[in-house]
Amino acid sequence: MKTIGFACTSADVPLAPYSFERRAPRADDLVMEILYCGVCHSDLHWSKNDWGWTVYPAVPGHEIVGRVIEIGSGVTRYKVGDHVAVGCLVDSCMKCDQCSKGEEQLCREGNTGTYGGFDRFSKDYTLGGYSKHLVVREEFALRVPDGLDLARAAPLLCAGITTYSPLKTWNIGLGSRVGVIGLGGLGHMAVKLAAGMGAEVTVLSRTADKNDDALALGAKALLVSTDETAMAKAANGFDLIIDTVPVKHDINPYMPLLDIDGTLVIVGQLGLLAEPHTVPMVLGRRRIAGSPIGGIRETQEMLDFCAEKNILPDCEMIRMDEINHAFERMEKADVRYRFVIDMASLEVA
Amino acid sequence: MKTIGFACTSADVPLAPYSFERRAPRADDLVMEILYCGVCHSDLHWSKNDWGWTVYPAVPGHEIVGRVIEIGSGVTRYKVGDHVAVGCLVDSCMKCDQCSKGEEQLCREGNTGTYGGFDRFSKDYTLGGYSKHLVVREEFALRVPDGLDLARAAPLLCAGITTYSPLKTWNIGLGSRVGVIGLGGLGHMAVKLAAGMGAEVTVLSRTADKNDDALALGAKALLVSTDETAMAKAANGFDLIIDTVPVKHDINPYMPLLDIDGTLVIVGQLGLLAEPHTVPMVLGRRRIAGSPIGGIRETQEMLDFCAEKNILPDCEMIRMDEINHAFERMEKADVRYRFVIDMASLEVA
Repeated sequence: MKTIGFACTSADVPLAPYSFERRAPRADDLVMEILYCGVCHSDLHWSKNDWGWTVYPAVPGHEIVGRVIEIGSGVTRYKVGDHVAVGCLVDSCMKCDQCSKGEEQLCREGNTGTYGGFDRFSKDYTLGGYSKHLVVREEFALRVPDGLDLARAAPLLCAGITTYSPLKTWNIGLGSRVGVIGLGGLGHMAVKLAAGMGAEVTVLSRTADKNDDALALGAKALLVSTDETAMAKAANGFDLIIDTVPVKHDINPYMPLLDIDGTLVIVGQLGLLAEPHTVPMVLGRRRIAGSPIGGIRETQEMLDFCAEKNILPDCEMIRMDEINHAFERMEKADVRYRFVIDMASLEVA
Repeated sequence: MKTIGFACTSADVPLAPYSFERRAPRADDLVMEILYCGVCHSDLHWSKNDWGWTVYPAVPGHEIVGRVIEIGSGVTRYKVGDHVAVGCLVDSCMKCDQCSKGEEQLCREGNTGTYGGFDRFSKDYTLGGYSKHLVVREEFALRVPDGLDLARAAPLLCAGITTYSPLKTWNIGLGSRVGVIGLGGLGHMAVKLAAGMGAEVTVLSRTADKNDDALALGAKALLVSTDETAMAKAANGFDLIIDTVPVKHDINPYMPLLDIDGTLVIVGQLGLLAEPHTVPMVLGRRRIAGSPIGGIRETQEMLDFCAEKNILPDCEMIRMDEINHAFERMEKADVRYRFVIDMASLEVA
């Protein structure tokens, strides 16, 4: 089917309108009209080929909320009119040990990214949610729970699950002590989700500027990481630190904040980390880990949790043709805390 | 009481005979005649002030096996003539959450090192096992199980527990896939202990030279880490990698060997690690951790396990006055796999 979106045609040009074909729906596919799409830092990295593997033209977008407008003959889970969502992956083998555990993001054959992947059957390059329509296998669509604001739900599909998943992996619950580094799209969700689980949340920030914001989001405190006295006093005070910083950085100031057996989990940066010192690790059995998005079952659980607890990202709505300006502002961290594109602003020619 | 040992008086002189006073035994102390003392890489670091906190004169040695020759009035666990052992710590608060869990090595007040610490009561600087006698609180003495070779048991007190503890922390057992980096004092014990637990053990080495040794120690294979084809084939093949390398190194070649949720645990190096790449961590939820020795209960468990399974280090016995040459050889990794000092070679003047 014909659709329209915004695409990058090379690393150094802005996104521009782009007409393209979505595949004809297979038996297990549904077709969704995209209503909202969140703007993730990955979209920017991807558009600019920061990771070196972008193929152009590239249509970003993996925080997708919409409405089913057509279903394949074998679709059983959804019907036309349902509100559905799609996150960072649109397919996996569904047979390996990881897929069997509901961890499709860790599929042994590699999952198929919503953008920048290759369809397992047609081998076509996948194109993301900065567009009017998406065709997706029903197993990789999520149900948007009734009552969850459709526009603000969009960033849950990446920023939400990326921070929810490590909170679950490391058993965060009532009374857990959670630190959050970086108060952006991911960080502000980490605060809300951890607080929603009953944890005591502290935002770690280089300055005190964000103190009021941190408290408003549900943190019990903001700890200024450049204040050596305060940092020393906070030693051993965290079970888990979620590190959402998207660029190369030094984790050494944060490691002694972890309690024995505590973990600092990186969810924001893909690349080299500054040299870590092993002393806090060895002497306190502390750990550094990474965590990637989450599986489909866990993503649905997260959406249901957010609906139940009324947890939603703080969003700024934009028109599709404002995306290049939004990218510029995002690079300067000038957004509280997530841009969402209102896809009604994108008219099919 | 008067005793004799070998001490360093500054970073740049060899160890030499040294007469000194051990404290008079307190009610809960026992006095041991030291029969054997293992030579740990830490002893060398300590003697040369590599970590910057050595106070001289310094008597190294924390792999100590001996015989009780006197007991304080309150001692209930041991009697004169018992074979006992002392590892890296000789005291802790015994009240905090960690001590209550039997993790005295992680005592909230800091444990008292067998050497290089300060006695909690007298504030005297602690002096280690390169000596004829030791006075130690009975709670920090281990029982050497009957039948365990006294000389070869010595290295279990540091090399043994340092590798046993992470194997237990990360639930290694029958069928677990364990990698070991570095086939020295710690590494060869990691191989023996993991194999004794029923794990499939692979030694990771830069060359194939140690293949026969690895198999003889109980490994099922040696993987040459400079062989890119073999390394790629081994990806995702390990649950735990024990990294015993004692100097700054690059863990990036090893991280993709870990399976999803796998951990590389550093037990050998105290210092900066080369910049790790976050991609294998984030995409495979892999972890880097550290682990320090073990608690008293776990050390006893390890000794009992070694007695039951007949697991002992491969040792080369030396005289006390050969220690400086042994240090030189240890620096060149020219020992298979642990020097043990026969303390009968040290005569009290």
